[in-house]
Amino acid sequence: MADVPPCVALVTDYGIDDTYAAALVGACWRVEPRLRCVSVTHGVSPGDVLAGAYHLKAAARAFPAGTVFCAVVDPEVGTERRAIAIETPEVRCVAPDNGLVTYLWLEAPADRRRCVSLPVPANASPTFHGRDLFAPVAARIACGASLDEVGTPVDAPHCLAEAVARVDATVDGARASCRIAVVDHFGNAITTLRLADLDGREVVAARWATGETRLVVRTYADIPPGEVALLVGSAGHVELAARRASAAALTGLGHGDAIEVELAPLGFRGWSA
Amino acid sequence: MADVPPCVALVTDYGIDDTYAAALVGACWRVEPRLRCVSVTHGVSPGDVLAGAYHLKAAARAFPAGTVFCAVVDPEVGTERRAIAIETPEVRCVAPDNGLVTYLWLEAPADRRRCVSLPVPANASPTFHGRDLFAPVAARIACGASLDEVGTPVDAPHCLAEAVARVDATVDGARASCRIAVVDHFGNAITTLRLADLDGREVVAARWATGETRLVVRTYADIPPGEVALLVGSAGHVELAARRASAAALTGLGHGDAIEVELAPLGFRGWSA
Amino acid sequence: MADVPPCVALVTDYGIDDTYAAALVGACWRVEPRLRCVSVTHGVSPGDVLAGAYHLKAAARAFPAGTVFCAVVDPEVGTERRAIAIETPEVRCVAPDNGLVTYLWLEAPADRRRCVSLPVPANASPTFHGRDLFAPVAARIACGASLDEVGTPVDAPHCLAEAVARVDATVDGARASCRIAVVDHFGNAITTLRLADLDGREVVAARWATGETRLVVRTYADIPPGEVALLVGSAGHVELAARRASAAALTGLGHGDAIEVELAPLGFRGWSA
Repeated sequence: MADVPPCVALVTDYGIDDTYAAALVGACWRVEPRLRCVSVTHGVSPGDVLAGAYHLKAAARAFPAGTVFCAVVDPEVGTERRAIAIETPEVRCVAPDNGLVTYLWLEAPADRRRCVSLPVPANASPTFHGRDLFAPVAARIACGASLDEVGTPVDAPHCLAEAVARVDATVDGARASCRIAVVDHFGNAITTLRLADLDGREVVAARWATGETRLVVRTYADIPPGEVALLVGSAGHVELAARRASAAALTGLGHGDAIEVELAPLGFRGWSA
Repeated sequence: MADVPPCVALVTDYGIDDTYAAALVGACWRVEPRLRCVSVTHGVSPGDVLAGAYHLKAAARAFPAGTVFCAVVDPEVGTERRAIAIETPEVRCVAPDNGLVTYLWLEAPADRRRCVSLPVPANASPTFHGRDLFAPVAARIACGASLDEVGTPVDAPHCLAEAVARVDATVDGARASCRIAVVDHFGNAITTLRLADLDGREVVAARWATGETRLVVRTYADIPPGEVALLVGSAGHVELAARRASAAALTGLGHGDAIEVELAPLGFRGWSA
Repeated sequence: MADVPPCVALVTDYGIDDTYAAALVGACWRVEPRLRCVSVTHGVSPGDVLAGAYHLKAAARAFPAGTVFCAVVDPEVGTERRAIAIETPEVRCVAPDNGLVTYLWLEAPADRRRCVSLPVPANASPTFHGRDLFAPVAARIACGASLDEVGTPVDAPHCLAEAVARVDATVDGARASCRIAVVDHFGNAITTLRLADLDGREVVAARWATGETRLVVRTYADIPPGEVALLVGSAGHVELAARRASAAALTGLGHGDAIEVELAPLGFRGWSA
């Protein structure tokens, strides 16, 4: 092991009021007690795979290269659902094969990503593969095991169709059909629409079931009190935000809800008066 | 100190919105800054000693041998209640002597467990023995201090009678009178009934104040939507669970509530059609 | 770097259900992967600078000297508000200049404290200076950078007037006008009134909008059920507490509410019967 102990980063829907989250740390330390284990979040809503996929992507951007992610949002634990490990130039990650790695996989170069299927240990608790399968494999990968040492190659992981916005050209620009991936702690409603999806266009407005906004700002303090605005958040996704208030509460939008974002034509450079 | 820094694991009812939980880490690091400190959970309901005892047991199973637990659910802090440290072949633990170590103590061989009473430092805050007594002693034990160096031998810690199910033989099997030890993040209602209590029998049904179930499954995904089933959870306790729903909400059961579990006769091997 | 890796301690209002809090750890580890990063609390109410200032002080007392705090309660992120780092004999801390460091600064000797203004990196996300400015600077300071290496000297940080109780002498002692700085996890309502403010006097009563108490105790277990009492908490602030109940709920007091504390005359030594 290198002078600096490798890092395993945890993303789950376990909450932190039980011992499930810490059991992942214990399981990693049974493999190698010098591992740095960090709880990225255990606050994914139970079973919310889309939110988990977003958080995993946001975390991967924030941690140094070489970090191994152990992601567990796994309502089908103990069934025939596949367990996987993936590797991209940016990140390695173990997870159930239910779409959790969608962004990590789709945003990696197609010729520089790999996926393996993981065997289930004979003595694994049927209700707790996090402790008995995912964390130990993440620890082994962090300690230097290759994907081929921990699993069997498969073509690709399952990816969530709804994690990717659909952008359609219109007469006067484009329209992105997307969803709310996450409502964060401050009530910001973060969409599935990414900077890369904009293809150089700018966001000009958004429309949802019960309202709309044409306010586009740079940061939260630029939003007039009581209003809802659009901005590009710190993980590169378009979000609805408010000033010292919850945009989710103001709009009624929640996880998974549909929202349409209007994009300016290519070459648009802001509104003239 | 060894090449791998020892580990202190924390179990409290402090919550994580204040600085109380982190103050335990700070107190450990004042003793030895290389200690690995891990927050197992600070989400025990305030003052809920039975839940704390369960979480402590579940965590002890998940961490490597040698881990020292610092458990603080301590509504009587600052009074004459005793502070203790225990040692078993599996675990060492400091805690107030109010039943928190019940499972750790009862599940250890009677001739291989020890308990000492800890002195209260003169300058300890009367409201915060976690920071001023328990964490520093846990850190010293982790660094190699023996129980005799930190306290005075006593016979045994206080153990909670309600933490142990009573199993009575019946005409057609047995009946276990137990309680809900914990309702977890997913709404699973975890009972005090342990695999060891079954003595080879199988769980076949459960009855509580307002309902019953005869459904016994292996994992959560096996439960039909809307139903409540019995299974053996990852810490070896029988629990009531539901499919992507809260069994606690569906049954109305909460921490400490009574529940009766019906056991098959010895030698029972499942239902014939 | 020393044999024992330096420590960065985090205090924010980010919550822990997203990846914002962990992103600070990732940002520190991008500077130096051996840093010990500890989440003191991410549970400050969104935007509540007074509560953040109290938690920062309480945490600074609990951690070893040399710990660098990274404090982010920053509703004005991305605007012209100043970012700062301070140094006192006890602590070093980076924060937005909105009053978060009030107690750290005011309780340090006037001739042994320094403050510098921090530049904003060109590529910083306008919505996430925690990740892109504060955490990296905290990591650099922890690794040995001086304040002069990370910023430009300024006179003093902004301090919150409402963080300090006003004590006025009265005919029969003194009266302290203060506020609730924090309601903690147990419902204790912690005031801005500090031991140092008492100047040797003792607390004898408190009055708030809807009630009063003349009960002063040493620890929680001394409070009769159903009653609200005054005590000096573990960080040296006067608080209202109840027995296995929430003093905040019993009194209706919340963050920022005004409360008046009556102090005995100098030399007072308790009530005679």
